[in-house]
Amino acid sequence: MPIQKPALSEYPINTLINDRWSPRAFDSKTVENSKLMSLLEAARWAASCNNSQPWRFIISKSEDKDAHDKAVSCFNERNQRWVKNAPVIGFVCAYKLMPNENPNRTYFYDTGMAMAQLSLQALEHNLYLHQAGGILIDKITADYSIPDNVDVVCGFGLGYQGEAESLPDELAERELEARKRNLISEFTFSNKFGEISKIFSNK
Amino acid sequence: MPIQKPALSEYPINTLINDRWSPRAFDSKTVENSKLMSLLEAARWAASCNNSQPWRFIISKSEDKDAHDKAVSCFNERNQRWVKNAPVIGFVCAYKLMPNENPNRTYFYDTGMAMAQLSLQALEHNLYLHQAGGILIDKITADYSIPDNVDVVCGFGLGYQGEAESLPDELAERELEARKRNLISEFTFSNKFGEISKIFSNK
Repeated sequence: MPIQKPALSEYPINTLINDRWSPRAFDSKTVENSKLMSLLEAARWAASCNNSQPWRFIISKSEDKDAHDKAVSCFNERNQRWVKNAPVIGFVCAYKLMPNENPNRTYFYDTGMAMAQLSLQALEHNLYLHQAGGILIDKITADYSIPDNVDVVCGFGLGYQGEAESLPDELAERELEARKRNLISEFTFSNKFGEISKIFSNK
Repeated sequence: MPIQKPALSEYPINTLINDRWSPRAFDSKTVENSKLMSLLEAARWAASCNNSQPWRFIISKSEDKDAHDKAVSCFNERNQRWVKNAPVIGFVCAYKLMPNENPNRTYFYDTGMAMAQLSLQALEHNLYLHQAGGILIDKITADYSIPDNVDVVCGFGLGYQGEAESLPDELAERELEARKRNLISEFTFSNKFGEISKIFSNK
């Protein structure tokens, strides 16, 4: 049975946003290319500064064993334990320059917006992602010929959910932990950074 | 009549993702606090590296004229032309450090994911955002007491859609332009960066 971890939200939010979480247990079932294209289409229509669209994706599927093995080898050992079972493995990259060749100050930010749209679209197809910063950036840069004007941001596994029992014990336990977040009042301010917003005093 | 600009998508995507765009024409109608809280709740549940949750928001509403005027004055003159009519104005900030005080390499990226969720949640309430990089970062830092370990990312206007005719001519024309994006095959690679992905050859 897939694990459900709806957000413990105080205010109503969209189902995809509510139900998204980052499992480590993936089923070996192939992800259909038509679904993968919908995920990339969702990323495609994200907002970005001056429509610079800095997001770049590298994607490998388990049907191509060599490509999949290569992708797994670009994660650190801790993350290899679970990502090796994901039928789709990818790396998110970000292009550093604006169309006019000036540095793009928000290239990581814009790329995050695209990746969030991709992650939410996944839920529409019962697909889940787990993103990981624990990747071997120098190896990825060499193995995938990443150019100087592109940064590797993170890696991810993508697929249908598997059974928590398929994971090493430590990871199986974490798979069942509740999702936790800061309170809205801890990250939203009004007149001065760090002071509780007036929004909260006049509902 | 609100302007609809559905994405010219090749593959089916979620309605919120499909219909999101960045208008400059806002109605003066107040945004209900309950809806604003749902938007912040959507941001709250975004993924982030080691659950570091680096996003921070500063939000002003037009009901508080002093706060709203102060926010408008922190945009460059080009953006002041339209943002002054938005009933909610905000600044997105990002906290630089991980919980263990090490630098957070993906703080802009994670903040982008939260902001994408906020932007999509807005559509559920017929609310739209326009984000802008053209802001006065030094002034914001001073006026809102932004601490050293926080970066200001961008500003935004938020509200119900207004009439394109309410804008200066140049902006009214842009309001009606079609949304354009790169092709998926231009930003998705497989074995090597810059080479078309195998995904596209075996649909």
